[in-house]
Amino acid sequence: MIPPAQWLQARPLRIAGTGMALPRTCVTSAELDARLGLPPGTVQARCGVARRYLAQPHETAAELAALAADRAVAAAGMRWADVDCLIAANATMDQALPYNAALVHAQLGLHAHRTATFDIGASCLSFLAAVDFAAAMIAAGRYTTVAVVSADLASVGLDWRDLETCGMFGDGAAAAILTRPPADAGSGPDSSSAILAARFETLSDGVDYCQIPAGGSRHHPGKVPDAVAFAELNLFRMQGKPLFRLMATEMPGFTQRLLAEAGAVLAGETRGTYGNLGVHGEQAAPAPLPIHRIARVIPHQASRLGITHIARRLGIATGQLTDIFEDYGNQVAASMPTALHLTLSAETAPQRGDILLLLGTSAGVSIGGMVVRY
Amino acid sequence: MIPPAQWLQARPLRIAGTGMALPRTCVTSAELDARLGLPPGTVQARCGVARRYLAQPHETAAELAALAADRAVAAAGMRWADVDCLIAANATMDQALPYNAALVHAQLGLHAHRTATFDIGASCLSFLAAVDFAAAMIAAGRYTTVAVVSADLASVGLDWRDLETCGMFGDGAAAAILTRPPADAGSGPDSSSAILAARFETLSDGVDYCQIPAGGSRHHPGKVPDAVAFAELNLFRMQGKPLFRLMATEMPGFTQRLLAEAGAVLAGETRGTYGNLGVHGEQAAPAPLPIHRIARVIPHQASRLGITHIARRLGIATGQLTDIFEDYGNQVAASMPTALHLTLSAETAPQRGDILLLLGTSAGVSIGGMVVRY
Repeated sequence: MIPPAQWLQARPLRIAGTGMALPRTCVTSAELDARLGLPPGTVQARCGVARRYLAQPHETAAELAALAADRAVAAAGMRWADVDCLIAANATMDQALPYNAALVHAQLGLHAHRTATFDIGASCLSFLAAVDFAAAMIAAGRYTTVAVVSADLASVGLDWRDLETCGMFGDGAAAAILTRPPADAGSGPDSSSAILAARFETLSDGVDYCQIPAGGSRHHPGKVPDAVAFAELNLFRMQGKPLFRLMATEMPGFTQRLLAEAGAVLAGETRGTYGNLGVHGEQAAPAPLPIHRIARVIPHQASRLGITHIARRLGIATGQLTDIFEDYGNQVAASMPTALHLTLSAETAPQRGDILLLLGTSAGVSIGGMVVRY
Repeated sequence: MIPPAQWLQARPLRIAGTGMALPRTCVTSAELDARLGLPPGTVQARCGVARRYLAQPHETAAELAALAADRAVAAAGMRWADVDCLIAANATMDQALPYNAALVHAQLGLHAHRTATFDIGASCLSFLAAVDFAAAMIAAGRYTTVAVVSADLASVGLDWRDLETCGMFGDGAAAAILTRPPADAGSGPDSSSAILAARFETLSDGVDYCQIPAGGSRHHPGKVPDAVAFAELNLFRMQGKPLFRLMATEMPGFTQRLLAEAGAVLAGETRGTYGNLGVHGEQAAPAPLPIHRIARVIPHQASRLGITHIARRLGIATGQLTDIFEDYGNQVAASMPTALHLTLSAETAPQRGDILLLLGTSAGVSIGGMVVRY
């Protein structure tokens, strides 16, 4: 369902800066071959990953998050006093209590700032969800500047007997600082920065396809007295085939709906209704945003197969696609902001005004996407 | 810091329905006295709780959440097809992965609806935070109707050797359905329904005052091989005295700032600038919203001492206060929506147009509050 016409309008939002952080230890797939007693090249061939960064036991998600967020604030030319809301958008918890954002706030030493802090989560789509919510809060005047940071240590939950998953995930953190674009439309190259469309759909018939059963109230140490059995319940489990099948079936329609919204917003702007009511119901439906108008597609780095399939299915050219999978693996919720940061800080970075498509899937199963005018 | 004057305006939001759910098992403090070998009356005298509802091992947070959310949808006179966003606002996870809202979505059997789902968390302030974010999304036209549901099973993490905490917490779930009020200001008694002010501050120097160290990547079964030591890390720990001291010091100033915002919004409406720019900078600061204008104060049911202290410190009359602590205990994130539901469904319920103050604290430590015109 496409929203009513009166809502089809760009929502101003400026990505003022981004940053990322990695654990110190890089693990190559060649090392993993040796560790698992496999012929050289096996892990890379099977998983498509050459190297990942894996946290040591003493490294915490909050530390990595704080490092990435600090870098994003610096990249935005700001100080923490300028940031009035901090959102942790992780897929997993650092501790059961308190929430991730409070731990990051403490790690950053921000207690004197009294920053409002929240967690926003949707597994691997957490960053995208948080950006969408942050944009609405900035538009409502609740906050002027929001830091969104994602950090996940997938490595703690990997089953090293399951090559399909253990060879694929990496740890990391990445952040973005979000503000209003300059109010005067003529005041600079980023005055038109906006979310053109955002969309999330949950298909919970796939709720079991990706899961870690424990780590919450459902399977608690107090309920599962056998330590070995409990440890098993803390491992990541993926049903790769049905998951891929569901996503392959659903992604084209989802993307079509997202690009139709973006197309309608752009058509409304062209007709001079930008900032007013958007498109009018009586007119013919505008064309979806064509893929060739998108400067860069930044997918969640879910898997080699997933990224390749999306690119082929949507007709994305190689130069249009951000593909960091080989060097970082699937970094869970940190994956998309890391890909965004690397895209925006590359030599061939998109320019202000360029259109970006962020697109991903998450355990849930959910599909999410956002069309951003950078 | 009070937001710039141009943002001081009411944000339309209608609470269309609420619902709650409890585990089947009610545990009285008298039973707990017997179980712990204490003289009759000890637990109630120490904790202020007469009875709580505690989940059996087979009951899940998602089941309770689904029950509460179903009841809220029915109370709103809606069906799930009318709800386009479902937010789980728990303090704790049901599983590590996927996220709570996806599990609730699956439990409700909503996969055909493709509802967008998200988690929003801030420990015990999760519900309030989710309402604030939901209002901004509804205002932005992203969603028309948002279900917010909180469910926590605190009982799994209780240390039965620690009377201070084990006698105080209860399990439960509660939900609210949020929509736009009718667009025409003259169209009904709830046409002025709105958030008048909302505020959150994190004071993370108290980050260790309330915590469960494990349940995330920081202390994982893979890192803590000793099962007994690991089980200990999964228990709730509270430093009651410094926590109370911090809250007692900070709450008055926080409430003052919140009521100042609400007062400014109401003053702006009186001067006829409602819906426009709000108050003007050149005018004298309007008076804070006086406590006597608040029909009902709904605090987080943190502890006997906490509720009593807030009521006394702010000068809240007995009839103004929702105090359900004796019958439910502290239900963590489910506490505030349960109190809201019981307030709105009581015989002496507030009427549309009445002003409610929701106020609470959370592990983090964070303080949050919202002034709502019901």
